[in-house]
Amino acid sequence: MPADFGVTAVAYPNIALVKYWGKRDENQIIPWADSLSVTLDCFPTTTTVHVRPEADADCLTFDGRPADRGALQRVTAFLDVVRKLAGRAEPAMVATVNAGPTAAGLASSASGFAALAGSAAAAYGLELDGIGLSRLARRGSGSAARSVFGGFSLLHAGEDDHSSFAEPIRAEVDLAIVIVLTGTAPKTVSSRAAMRHTVETSPLYWSWIESGRDDLAAMRDALGRGDLVQVGEIAERNALGMHATMLAARPAVRYLSPSTLVALDGVAQLRRDGIPAYATMDAGPNVKVLCRPEDAGRVVGMARDKLPDCPTAVARRGPGVSVRIEEAR
Amino acid sequence: MPADFGVTAVAYPNIALVKYWGKRDENQIIPWADSLSVTLDCFPTTTTVHVRPEADADCLTFDGRPADRGALQRVTAFLDVVRKLAGRAEPAMVATVNAGPTAAGLASSASGFAALAGSAAAAYGLELDGIGLSRLARRGSGSAARSVFGGFSLLHAGEDDHSSFAEPIRAEVDLAIVIVLTGTAPKTVSSRAAMRHTVETSPLYWSWIESGRDDLAAMRDALGRGDLVQVGEIAERNALGMHATMLAARPAVRYLSPSTLVALDGVAQLRRDGIPAYATMDAGPNVKVLCRPEDAGRVVGMARDKLPDCPTAVARRGPGVSVRIEEAR
Repeated sequence: MPADFGVTAVAYPNIALVKYWGKRDENQIIPWADSLSVTLDCFPTTTTVHVRPEADADCLTFDGRPADRGALQRVTAFLDVVRKLAGRAEPAMVATVNAGPTAAGLASSASGFAALAGSAAAAYGLELDGIGLSRLARRGSGSAARSVFGGFSLLHAGEDDHSSFAEPIRAEVDLAIVIVLTGTAPKTVSSRAAMRHTVETSPLYWSWIESGRDDLAAMRDALGRGDLVQVGEIAERNALGMHATMLAARPAVRYLSPSTLVALDGVAQLRRDGIPAYATMDAGPNVKVLCRPEDAGRVVGMARDKLPDCPTAVARRGPGVSVRIEEAR
Repeated sequence: MPADFGVTAVAYPNIALVKYWGKRDENQIIPWADSLSVTLDCFPTTTTVHVRPEADADCLTFDGRPADRGALQRVTAFLDVVRKLAGRAEPAMVATVNAGPTAAGLASSASGFAALAGSAAAAYGLELDGIGLSRLARRGSGSAARSVFGGFSLLHAGEDDHSSFAEPIRAEVDLAIVIVLTGTAPKTVSSRAAMRHTVETSPLYWSWIESGRDDLAAMRDALGRGDLVQVGEIAERNALGMHATMLAARPAVRYLSPSTLVALDGVAQLRRDGIPAYATMDAGPNVKVLCRPEDAGRVVGMARDKLPDCPTAVARRGPGVSVRIEEAR
């Protein structure tokens, strides 16, 4: 290990097939329900952490520019968790680059905090296995716990810091995820605020949490059998249920835009045409269409036809977080 | 009373401010929950019933053309209820004209069955007061029970035919309802089928029913106080909750279209601009915007601006069913 070194980690966003929405503990980020996701192979976040004993405070760049105060506070709060675990106190310089749009419901906080967890843990000398790293990443963003692993992973909600972590799960299904970017502007309501508001005000929230238990069991079963149709049906119904809880919040939170519904209508049309395609949406208007890899072109064609101004991307299952240590220049 | 006579009734659609969605008894049409509506002054249905002892069977024209088999069966089933109550058996000729679009979520079955109840009851010699007529209209369509009355009315769900009826309620609020016709094609899933499917498959349904009890109490209170802002807020949240239960049904039922969301975005913008405007949607893509009468022009302007191809109509509170007897030519 060189004396002065930086650690760079790369992590990918994940798309939840059974959603995480709502926290039991806001401070430690303990979800109310288990969730299950697939990590993508596109839109990675690359984050480099240098520990800087001589600095006064943490500093953060975002895509090469100084980050705003809110982002810096969130990163410092996360680094404080790492520093406490490592028994250290030095500030760090953090440089992060997102290949995809930020805060647009494309899981930039999942890839972001997974990459930060990986790079900060190594930079401060924490030795963590995958589960330990997922537990740490969860402190930044619940969904980040899942991006620690490649392929499919399950985030156990647990009840406290120790019992709340992700682990990889076996799945026999080969799928493509077509991302239809119906809007890439940062969202006006953060996932964090929207979750809290839903838990506190939506009369439908707890029924959805309850139905999610069945969805999770059915999803694990369908993934194990390689049954893409079942995987898609469960993912779509679980996502629509989550958005339903938000629509019923008081006042409503609606991430679905007119273009989102155009894409959903297109997916329904594909199914009527015999193509197994299923949609899922997170805290943003973008639509992710689950399909067989051989049908991805057909799905992209639908999106181009119905939403000619919206870019698309085709993702497959991607890798977990990777970390490399570099001597400082 | 002339020997050969026809009875013509005119009834208006109503817009539920606290929705009816889901039946306890499919045959007698007993709702699971109370609902509350305002009857409109536009899009009336005019229905004439002639009892025809010489005929073999009922016949029905719809906007001057012979009706399809499904509509005729539904009318005959309703007339059978009337005939049983009247102790009579003769067929009838029924002519009905809708001033608005049919089966497009604009309450054509509410105005339709209220008008049919009024005209058929008189034609077969049933003497019913308003509550009795609403109980009868309910056998055709739950929401028709409310269109028997003008202004605001409350449909008591009850538990059986006797206890399930509407009655007028006092309200101090003066409002306009701007109807944005985002789509007037007949719906692909009938309200009746969609209700049944929601009750049977949506894990969120019962929570919505429970939340509706509070909505109803709060709505009555707000109407009594003439508090348009509260009336609007409760109506909008109750409607979004109903659509949320459908979105979470398995598979989802979605009446909201891309244009519906464009209109909802426009209503939210009006509110940010200080105009108290609130949206409600039924089993179709059309949006009804509740606002102060003096703001109706502003709401229409928003709709024309955002949805230039969609017609609009401005309604106020309208009258209950009216009946007149005419000597046959």
